[in-house]
Amino acid sequence: MNTITLNNATKMPQLGLGTWKIDKANCADVIVAAAKAGYRHFDCACDYGNEKEVGEGLRRVMDEGIATREQLWITSKLWNTYHAAEHVRPACEKTLSDLGLDYVDLYLIHFPISLKFVPFEDRYPPEWFYDPNAAQPKLVPHPVPIRETWQAMEQLMESHLVKNIGVCNFGVSLIRDLLSYARIRPSVLQVELHPLLTQEKLLRYCATEEIAVTAFSSFGAESYYSLGMAQPSESLMKHALVQQIAQQTGRSPAQVLLRWAVQRGTIVIPKASSPAHLEDNAAIFDFELSGDQMQQLSDLNQNRRFNDPGDFCEAAFNTFFPIYE
Amino acid sequence: MNTITLNNATKMPQLGLGTWKIDKANCADVIVAAAKAGYRHFDCACDYGNEKEVGEGLRRVMDEGIATREQLWITSKLWNTYHAAEHVRPACEKTLSDLGLDYVDLYLIHFPISLKFVPFEDRYPPEWFYDPNAAQPKLVPHPVPIRETWQAMEQLMESHLVKNIGVCNFGVSLIRDLLSYARIRPSVLQVELHPLLTQEKLLRYCATEEIAVTAFSSFGAESYYSLGMAQPSESLMKHALVQQIAQQTGRSPAQVLLRWAVQRGTIVIPKASSPAHLEDNAAIFDFELSGDQMQQLSDLNQNRRFNDPGDFCEAAFNTFFPIYE
Repeated sequence: MNTITLNNATKMPQLGLGTWKIDKANCADVIVAAAKAGYRHFDCACDYGNEKEVGEGLRRVMDEGIATREQLWITSKLWNTYHAAEHVRPACEKTLSDLGLDYVDLYLIHFPISLKFVPFEDRYPPEWFYDPNAAQPKLVPHPVPIRETWQAMEQLMESHLVKNIGVCNFGVSLIRDLLSYARIRPSVLQVELHPLLTQEKLLRYCATEEIAVTAFSSFGAESYYSLGMAQPSESLMKHALVQQIAQQTGRSPAQVLLRWAVQRGTIVIPKASSPAHLEDNAAIFDFELSGDQMQQLSDLNQNRRFNDPGDFCEAAFNTFFPIYE
Repeated sequence: MNTITLNNATKMPQLGLGTWKIDKANCADVIVAAAKAGYRHFDCACDYGNEKEVGEGLRRVMDEGIATREQLWITSKLWNTYHAAEHVRPACEKTLSDLGLDYVDLYLIHFPISLKFVPFEDRYPPEWFYDPNAAQPKLVPHPVPIRETWQAMEQLMESHLVKNIGVCNFGVSLIRDLLSYARIRPSVLQVELHPLLTQEKLLRYCATEEIAVTAFSSFGAESYYSLGMAQPSESLMKHALVQQIAQQTGRSPAQVLLRWAVQRGTIVIPKASSPAHLEDNAAIFDFELSGDQMQQLSDLNQNRRFNDPGDFCEAAFNTFFPIYE
């Protein structure tokens, strides 16, 4: 399994299974199938609502001797409602309890956004909105400095609950500010990346700062149709160029998109549920795209971001909450 | 003179004179001519290298009885090399000394970027690069948390050296983080804004947070040709739509672009040196653009940012220093 070496010399598998949107009903089975197909890295989050089921799958993976804990790489993410210093450790411990683990390999701040705390017993995961006193669901910001959250993340490392820490959905200037006060530097940034959103400067910045980058939504629009956040015409899977390169290389469009990502040096975490897709997505280290093919794909860039919770919050409950502007 | 009411009830003139690139040689004369043409707001910065000459002009404006200090609005900006807490007050005092003033009405953090301190006597203004030991000019970052700088800005207000504080070139997530710890909220954000870079979400966010917005580079490419940062084909002044609306309204293209900006509620700070241009730019409060004309101009948006010092730093001395990604 190809690995990326992090700034603290840890090796992280370059391919992982994304668990966002994996149905609870078959989640444990998917984890086991993925492990059998060679996956050792699982990308999880409180917000995905299936960490108990992922944990059940991981237990089976270890019980059945498919992989040991040391051979696995588990990432999870701190949700927006737990940014205050006193909530970071309980949130991490809840995730560890759900996953059935003593530690995760990587713990990320999910968004540079802090929302009002929601007690676990009231609603878990709390998602984007919650106000028990409101007749309508409502997003309730509760400002916490990113520095306060980061210091609590550093303490998780010192408590050995997590082996690495990092952030998601941060841009250059937020990272630069974080680096100015971090005692422990982030190992990983996770952001949306695909040929319609290539973010070359952000990647280059992370390279200069020795921050590894995980690409999410490598297939672009695919996860966003059902959320009303993408149009079928925006499909990368069906894009003429992707199909053409798939033909040229004798690979699937999914493999072309993932290969483009790993060849740029990013970590990928495609979601799949069927054994066929799991295997297809994993077979990306035995071929190369040419320089021309890489460039043609990168030239599709339109700075098109599908995962903008600001748009989602506005559409879902009429709350304006921009992040990337 | 139209004013914008800030979140602390202060009134700020909606039109100011931008002093970036005004030649030292005739700078004082331009300030006096502007004041005679009705300008009461002058947008300055350490980095513009002409604060002494602006100060000479302001002295004449007051000596000649054109305006009193109380009738004037003077903005200046903290340069990148003075972000450390101990340098903020000396930098502000240097600006006040150059301008010949006891206070400025507004003091802004010029960029969310902290560079190595350069003593005043070594080089003033230090601009983007300075390393006395390097054979070649070199950009030398020196990370300081934005919070440290902001707290020093707050102290300037408490010391009555500045009446209002704010930031330039910040995006939504940096502002949101700053608001989470600010004891004194920023009154003003200054950013590049014109029909090729409309930044609607940023404006809307600032409106919800009661932060007034000053638009710089209202004419788009104009200031950037000589810096090699814009192509003649990108001219807004010569754009067919701008020219058409100028014809429809019987106004100049410059007035159309400024009117679009003030009608969106932003403050504008066009630069001009000749009395004719000064007067032309000021005559923007006696006509209106129709809703259609406003929308047509806004529809030109291409998220085209001309003022990206990252590009400049890379072109000028091969240093990669992204800001907005």
